[in-house]
Amino acid sequence: MSKSIFYHAGCPVCISAEHDIIDLIGASNVEVIHLGEDKSKIAQAEQAGVKSVPSLVTSNGNVLHINFGASLADVKG
Amino acid sequence: MSKSIFYHAGCPVCISAEHDIIDLIGASNVEVIHLGEDKSKIAQAEQAGVKSVPSLVTSNGNVLHINFGASLADVKG
Repeated sequence: MSKSIFYHAGCPVCISAEHDIIDLIGASNVEVIHLGEDKSKIAQAEQAGVKSVPSLVTSNGNVLHINFGASLADVKG
Repeated sequence: MSKSIFYHAGCPVCISAEHDIIDLIGASNVEVIHLGEDKSKIAQAEQAGVKSVPSLVTSNGNVLHINFGASLADVKG
């Protein structure tokens, strides 16, 4: 199975969801990308269909928006 | 690890998320509850903090609202 990608932006909602996702699916199965620290990845997230963070993009390309921390527009600043 | 509980109401968004969650964490690690078919479980979901479906309640009690299918109020009808 290829990895899922968890996009977040360091917000409290994001960190809490990150812990839950890693507990559920295992750290080795998920790549974590902090869009606040790596803004060059924002375009990649948008292209995947991410509208807000935290979000998990599964290995088959589905986007799971988990709770709501911030919109991608807010992350762009 | 005790099971997570996935609450849904049969909506397309719910079914899609259910498949993704089962792919990610395995069918044996998640109990699926269809609130549309088993309305007696709505109170239990509310008490766990579920505001909308689909939602995953982790074994440590955190609620992950995944995408948005319907509010719990709508499920109550």
